[in-house]
Amino acid sequence: MAVGSGELGTLHPVPGIQMSAVSAGIKKPGRLDCVVFDLGETATVAGMFTKNAFCAAPVTICRNHLRHGSPRYFVINTGNANAGTGKQGMDDALKVCLEIAELKSLPVHDILPFSTGVIGVNLPVEKITNVLPQALNSLSGDNWAECARGIMTTDTRPKAASVQVDIDGKTITITGIAKGAGMIKPNMATMLAYVFTDAEVMQQDLQDMLESAVNRSFNRITVDSDTSTNDCCMLAASGRSSVKVSAKTTVFVDALHEVFIKLAQGLVRDAEGATKFVTIDVEEGASSEECVNLAYTVAESPLVKTALFASDPNWGRILAATGRAGLVDLELEKVSIYLGDVCIVRGGAVAPEYKEEAGQQVMDQEEITIRIKLGRGDSHETVWTCDLSHDYVTINAEYRT
Amino acid sequence: MAVGSGELGTLHPVPGIQMSAVSAGIKKPGRLDCVVFDLGETATVAGMFTKNAFCAAPVTICRNHLRHGSPRYFVINTGNANAGTGKQGMDDALKVCLEIAELKSLPVHDILPFSTGVIGVNLPVEKITNVLPQALNSLSGDNWAECARGIMTTDTRPKAASVQVDIDGKTITITGIAKGAGMIKPNMATMLAYVFTDAEVMQQDLQDMLESAVNRSFNRITVDSDTSTNDCCMLAASGRSSVKVSAKTTVFVDALHEVFIKLAQGLVRDAEGATKFVTIDVEEGASSEECVNLAYTVAESPLVKTALFASDPNWGRILAATGRAGLVDLELEKVSIYLGDVCIVRGGAVAPEYKEEAGQQVMDQEEITIRIKLGRGDSHETVWTCDLSHDYVTINAEYRT
Repeated sequence: MAVGSGELGTLHPVPGIQMSAVSAGIKKPGRLDCVVFDLGETATVAGMFTKNAFCAAPVTICRNHLRHGSPRYFVINTGNANAGTGKQGMDDALKVCLEIAELKSLPVHDILPFSTGVIGVNLPVEKITNVLPQALNSLSGDNWAECARGIMTTDTRPKAASVQVDIDGKTITITGIAKGAGMIKPNMATMLAYVFTDAEVMQQDLQDMLESAVNRSFNRITVDSDTSTNDCCMLAASGRSSVKVSAKTTVFVDALHEVFIKLAQGLVRDAEGATKFVTIDVEEGASSEECVNLAYTVAESPLVKTALFASDPNWGRILAATGRAGLVDLELEKVSIYLGDVCIVRGGAVAPEYKEEAGQQVMDQEEITIRIKLGRGDSHETVWTCDLSHDYVTINAEYRT
Repeated sequence: MAVGSGELGTLHPVPGIQMSAVSAGIKKPGRLDCVVFDLGETATVAGMFTKNAFCAAPVTICRNHLRHGSPRYFVINTGNANAGTGKQGMDDALKVCLEIAELKSLPVHDILPFSTGVIGVNLPVEKITNVLPQALNSLSGDNWAECARGIMTTDTRPKAASVQVDIDGKTITITGIAKGAGMIKPNMATMLAYVFTDAEVMQQDLQDMLESAVNRSFNRITVDSDTSTNDCCMLAASGRSSVKVSAKTTVFVDALHEVFIKLAQGLVRDAEGATKFVTIDVEEGASSEECVNLAYTVAESPLVKTALFASDPNWGRILAATGRAGLVDLELEKVSIYLGDVCIVRGGAVAPEYKEEAGQQVMDQEEITIRIKLGRGDSHETVWTCDLSHDYVTINAEYRT
């Protein structure tokens, strides 16, 4: 199951960036499971990583290598997370980097490794190193769709987004791919995302832009409130356009946010077992923080999520979740709750004009907006989530079998 | 589904306490759905209530009436929560109290009302008041099992516990009933619990004992991390034994905790869709708070819960949940994790001696203990939970249909 069409649309090449996807046979023979990105010689790179204390070996190495400031290659495998693997895991991830470093005569810290898949199983290093020459030989600027497929795990479809904008009379491209279908929650997700542009961006600017974009996208989604050991989100700027942009280049930042939000929503639309795409808007809050907390409390309530799965306008569960979100001095009489455009709760009780048929009509749709107005300020926040279905349980109960 | 036998065992009468269960036909004709407790003239009563801001009308009235300090009757209905019902809900709950007050010539504040069931539908007051004379006429000291059934909603079986202890050569009884199967989380649950004793306890002592007992029982369980609008937990002491006890009467307090823990575990064993009863022990923590937080993070992880459902010793998910619990300065090399007696993680990675068969043997059992040792202090806490199964989704997706 997945919500919406999932069409990738046109994925524009990003001058200076090349990529390839090959099959290392890590879990299944023939499946694309190893992806390499060549960033060229002049790229700046920014990264955000899981906050999980038990982060995977490649995440630790990625962080270390990024400090050297000259990344040239990303190498990504699926089918094995190389997490919970201790010192052996570190050695294994380094071996993969070393292979590319030797083939390309680069220092090992120019290679950033990424892994996703089962936790606690040692990385099949040879399977990966065996196919790296093939991956390096098949690099091209136009392999986005293959690479988007090559980083999938329980995803049912690839996610990618691409936007072009004009700056100083030149066309600047931003194209990215992402994977993730569960264990998705703020502080990112079991997600990997790679976004590229040919703009020229100073490294610190790029890091700031990445963090701001993630806070409006990947840090505003939730599927099951779990956070993985392997999350990484990378933003690379090849600089090939010679158009300099900074965090003040609004047209660029807006386009970047558009790409990030489309990728993040793509994760939710393809979330494990999802049959509904749900937007939770919290408005008129006293602070952004309370809006986000409330939106997440509603988005993560299993009772709200199962009601969404059943297309049941059970507004009582939304009201109950709102009530337990820990809002300080909440005045119930100022609170109203909407399903789509239908007011279901006003003044702490069901709206007098509310008719179940109207709520049902909203709940029958595949894309649903729940809007909560707190009536006590100007802050607003949006979180995206999905329903909790039988397929979610099936997928996660049977993942290893 | 439910875990364990669910035998009620012997439920000792509590001198001074009488009860009855009748059918008001609120949801289904013939089903026991209205329970009355007569506490006698000398009882002291303590109560704890939901912290949900949208608390139900009867909860508000209960709190108000309890302040008058002379409760004589509890009246409980299932099938309708009288929550999200605004002013009408307050009037309706009061009408139910008034009916008993008039029949018994008591002030209305001597009656405490409780409701559980669907949110947002007006209380069918007449159906309830019609059967109150019958309920009052059939009071007896020995109706525990009927009343335990009479407060059930999605519960598949009644929950009750009874303990007797000798104090000063006299036998003191503590007997209680509870309901609740979902929306269960700290700050109580969609739960109602009523515990009675014939000991003589000052009201303030009774309230302190109740809070301490709840913090070791109902506030240490979770099913789905939701908290209801209607939670109430009441402790009443009839004083009929003339044996005075206080929070320092260890033998009494221990027996009280035994009853509360048995009731709380009973809720988890009968949790919606539960096929496993799971104990999460966190040991060697720096503080109680961090132990509780970590235990709940693991207990509420949908990925851990679906792995438990699948009897899959997927220790990576336990490790990942531990890593995201926000423990400050966690030293991974000091952390070890056990499934039953089997060490699965040591020093941040899978234990070298771990064999999947050993983990599988633990996971195949119906009752499972997950033990996490942090190696940084003397604090320890225990939380009880269950797995996340297809039946949970089915029950909550179809609750109103």
